[in-house]
Amino acid sequence: MELGLVGLGKMGGNMRERIRRAGHTVIGYDRNPDLADAASLEELVSQLQGPRVVWVMVPAGAATQSTIDELGSLLSPGDVVIDGGNSRWTDDEKHAAELADKGIGFVDCGVSGGVWGLENGYALMYGGDSEHVAKAQPIFDALKPPGDLGAVHAGKVGAGHFAKMVHNGIEYAMMQAFAEGWELLEAVDSVTDVREVFRNWQEGTVIRSWLLDLAVRALDDDEHLEKLRGFAQDSGEGRWTVEAAIDHAVPLPAITASLFARFGSRQDDSPSMKMIAALRNQFGGHAVESSKK
Amino acid sequence: MELGLVGLGKMGGNMRERIRRAGHTVIGYDRNPDLADAASLEELVSQLQGPRVVWVMVPAGAATQSTIDELGSLLSPGDVVIDGGNSRWTDDEKHAAELADKGIGFVDCGVSGGVWGLENGYALMYGGDSEHVAKAQPIFDALKPPGDLGAVHAGKVGAGHFAKMVHNGIEYAMMQAFAEGWELLEAVDSVTDVREVFRNWQEGTVIRSWLLDLAVRALDDDEHLEKLRGFAQDSGEGRWTVEAAIDHAVPLPAITASLFARFGSRQDDSPSMKMIAALRNQFGGHAVESSKK
Amino acid sequence: MELGLVGLGKMGGNMRERIRRAGHTVIGYDRNPDLADAASLEELVSQLQGPRVVWVMVPAGAATQSTIDELGSLLSPGDVVIDGGNSRWTDDEKHAAELADKGIGFVDCGVSGGVWGLENGYALMYGGDSEHVAKAQPIFDALKPPGDLGAVHAGKVGAGHFAKMVHNGIEYAMMQAFAEGWELLEAVDSVTDVREVFRNWQEGTVIRSWLLDLAVRALDDDEHLEKLRGFAQDSGEGRWTVEAAIDHAVPLPAITASLFARFGSRQDDSPSMKMIAALRNQFGGHAVESSKK
Amino acid sequence: MELGLVGLGKMGGNMRERIRRAGHTVIGYDRNPDLADAASLEELVSQLQGPRVVWVMVPAGAATQSTIDELGSLLSPGDVVIDGGNSRWTDDEKHAAELADKGIGFVDCGVSGGVWGLENGYALMYGGDSEHVAKAQPIFDALKPPGDLGAVHAGKVGAGHFAKMVHNGIEYAMMQAFAEGWELLEAVDSVTDVREVFRNWQEGTVIRSWLLDLAVRALDDDEHLEKLRGFAQDSGEGRWTVEAAIDHAVPLPAITASLFARFGSRQDDSPSMKMIAALRNQFGGHAVESSKK
Repeated sequence: MELGLVGLGKMGGNMRERIRRAGHTVIGYDRNPDLADAASLEELVSQLQGPRVVWVMVPAGAATQSTIDELGSLLSPGDVVIDGGNSRWTDDEKHAAELADKGIGFVDCGVSGGVWGLENGYALMYGGDSEHVAKAQPIFDALKPPGDLGAVHAGKVGAGHFAKMVHNGIEYAMMQAFAEGWELLEAVDSVTDVREVFRNWQEGTVIRSWLLDLAVRALDDDEHLEKLRGFAQDSGEGRWTVEAAIDHAVPLPAITASLFARFGSRQDDSPSMKMIAALRNQFGGHAVESSKK
Repeated sequence: MELGLVGLGKMGGNMRERIRRAGHTVIGYDRNPDLADAASLEELVSQLQGPRVVWVMVPAGAATQSTIDELGSLLSPGDVVIDGGNSRWTDDEKHAAELADKGIGFVDCGVSGGVWGLENGYALMYGGDSEHVAKAQPIFDALKPPGDLGAVHAGKVGAGHFAKMVHNGIEYAMMQAFAEGWELLEAVDSVTDVREVFRNWQEGTVIRSWLLDLAVRALDDDEHLEKLRGFAQDSGEGRWTVEAAIDHAVPLPAITASLFARFGSRQDDSPSMKMIAALRNQFGGHAVESSKK
Repeated sequence: MELGLVGLGKMGGNMRERIRRAGHTVIGYDRNPDLADAASLEELVSQLQGPRVVWVMVPAGAATQSTIDELGSLLSPGDVVIDGGNSRWTDDEKHAAELADKGIGFVDCGVSGGVWGLENGYALMYGGDSEHVAKAQPIFDALKPPGDLGAVHAGKVGAGHFAKMVHNGIEYAMMQAFAEGWELLEAVDSVTDVREVFRNWQEGTVIRSWLLDLAVRALDDDEHLEKLRGFAQDSGEGRWTVEAAIDHAVPLPAITASLFARFGSRQDDSPSMKMIAALRNQFGGHAVESSKK
Repeated sequence: MELGLVGLGKMGGNMRERIRRAGHTVIGYDRNPDLADAASLEELVSQLQGPRVVWVMVPAGAATQSTIDELGSLLSPGDVVIDGGNSRWTDDEKHAAELADKGIGFVDCGVSGGVWGLENGYALMYGGDSEHVAKAQPIFDALKPPGDLGAVHAGKVGAGHFAKMVHNGIEYAMMQAFAEGWELLEAVDSVTDVREVFRNWQEGTVIRSWLLDLAVRALDDDEHLEKLRGFAQDSGEGRWTVEAAIDHAVPLPAITASLFARFGSRQDDSPSMKMIAALRNQFGGHAVESSKK
């Protein structure tokens, strides 16, 4: 089938390649003309035969909103827009309604796979009406990993991004689990080869997992991670997971601890710990250390 | 080779079977004569040719201590005792010293694999002097999973149990990660098939893992886990992990949150939340609920 | 001076009384005619001489919005509206802008004091332009506790509710601190009189505080809190505090733990702990307990 | 009455002064002869008339153990030793048993008050048999704050240190509560005077407390705590509180979060966050930052 693909960055570019390898036609658009197949969104739309399917793979927020707005004015009733970016699930219902007013379908799709997706396939979680999902099914089949698993129609509009968001929340806490365990093993004298412990955990243990495999790869590059700074960004989904949990009064202690650990990793000095130091000094006369600045 | 194996419960019995399948001779002893090959520890020791290797697989604490004490009086210099139970790592150095006084070697070995170990092999983490480990190596090879991974000489005496303990700490937080994510997905209306989301996460995602596979098995038995009570025991290693972290001033927020969630799951009513309710009533006149009792 | 006061519930009614005791004229309106001085908002506004000051003390959200909307159509340029309810700080800027279009000033005011405020005074944190604050100053002076402290112009519009929200977040964690300590003391045998420990902590300790005084009052009513269920509501500010922290990438582990403890207290059974139990059963054959239902 | 006092550091020296002001005779010993009244423990004991009461105020652990050992050999049946240091409660039963073998009584006493105790009095929590407590009662009365509160016989031997330990655990979480709230207020633009917010919280709020008063003092010295480094020691009691909670399966999320925040404050770089950064790089190609070293 034919697909219009908007956004040809690291993710979008690889996805185009994987879809083409499956025998489909992809017309890609990107603001960077060196990456693009069509010179404009208008040209992209004009080159597709209806009913059209256009996959949006641009940064969440303003870029996604303006792309969907423009597609809304270019596409025709019966066409379908898929938002495959990292949009917050709360945006999906709004986007679906805006497009539905023009007879255009909408599917939200969370995509997992990162730099490994081109070769291994991308895990897909999508939400929306079955008739809209059906139009995009050949593309989902091309992107997903081989076998029966890796792509799921999770529910209504928004369910795809919601499921992907929770996936990332779980990912945060799993990463934190390995990170805490690694730090503790590195802290004791009796365990003399932490990397070999991690490596051998890959078989027969309860914690065997792809993240463990990746941890071993990282330790093979740099046994004690001495080259790295303990500085971790977060990309939105972790925050949204906690916010969704608060909305539903669901306690998420491990996932939230993982998010806060990242926040802390980005502070040069901790304001709250300054206050702790100040209070200890006030009541106990405990010594304080001067600011690093 | 020949092995003496003390403790033929769920774990020990399966381990005897797996070692025998690998062609070794196992003489097992258990307090339950229906399970035992030898009628006493004394008989077990007398049936082994020196240098003997005896694997202790009994509950941590008093049972392990008394078994090691008795073996200390029965074995000869050059023999080796392996503690494969869930002993706290701090016991290992003591046990090693007691046996070393008699010329007997000691290896501590953490074993992971549960009910799946008989078929898939057991992941092993062991600590001790290389000469003692070498004497037990054929047994380690018989127990471990096929392939190059799954057994590691982690370091000095105590390192095996320490590494296994940290494995379990990581396991706690990984389980908590999936549990939190599942609860959140179940709480929202838009995601209409949480089980299918979990099932499809098994391919292509960052969180694919054996624990995820097991979660899918559990959901296939009982889609919304309605038959179960949210009640989780803990077996010691999670507590010890947090205590070890405190000893080394290592922050373990996610693992500790996972341990505390289990503690909370076993309370019929939360004393601390009674105090919160009482305080809210005191300052705000907020309504309280009467005790369930 | 004259004040219009909208909302005469538990808080609003007591505040009317305290303001009147200070010699001011209060015309109150409430949907419940038994409580009201004026029959309608329109009548309330007509009875005040300009420039008018109207204090809104109704539930946050729809009720506050509709009251402010209606006041916007009734009041005149130069009048001032104070929102003293528990509005989310993000609503304040919107309300201020809506009123500013009509030349009406807006001040947001967080109020602490609960059932004790009538006698002891209410702590006030307000935000807005100085000229608008100045018009309400006599009312703030009437409501606040005696002495130099207890009322603060915290900053711009929204700062009052933001400061009150953070106050409540701190309150959550302080309450949790006492609750955790109390639970631990009650759990050990050696401490034979926990209530007396709490009572005596009221002098000379680092933790002496009003909340401790209230805890002692609660324990005097019910030494082991046996009459209460460990069930705690949360009123919005705790959630908003965590959300604000996420917006600013500020780690709030203790406050968030306190919020999650309340969420957990309201669950009959924990879905996440069902998953933990299910996973333990899958990998280790650990026994599970049946659902209470 | 007469008291022997061993340890005349910051705490012990001030306590000698306060006891003397109450009209008692104190013979103090310290390794530092400039501080001491007696040249040796032996001399101290010889100067006291029986039945003697000797207060030990030296660092927990080895120093306390050796002092108690030496006193055990110097004192007579009917004498009483009070351990007023920060000993772990688990040491108390051992010390009591060792002294009981010689007919010497033992009382453990947790002391709160820090640098403010000389003027305001020290809060005291003590454990032991009533007959031993009675012999020390005049000293407790001299040290405690004026009024009816501030000194409590908490229970059996060990109960005093246990209660003091829990006091400090609560203190950790209360300090963390204020620290988190302060950090969040400082992070937003709308609140323009955080120090004034804190100052005014001292009256009429739910969170008014001595720690809040101290926070205001600290902010008066250094409004944004710019001179300080966010680096906080912990003194043992926080760790022991968490360990005691683990022993009793009591969840302590807020207190533990507070302890871990201090651990984190002392790390130049976080090993666990290095692992998070490494994993993000592995699966997503996310950029990493180089080590600061």
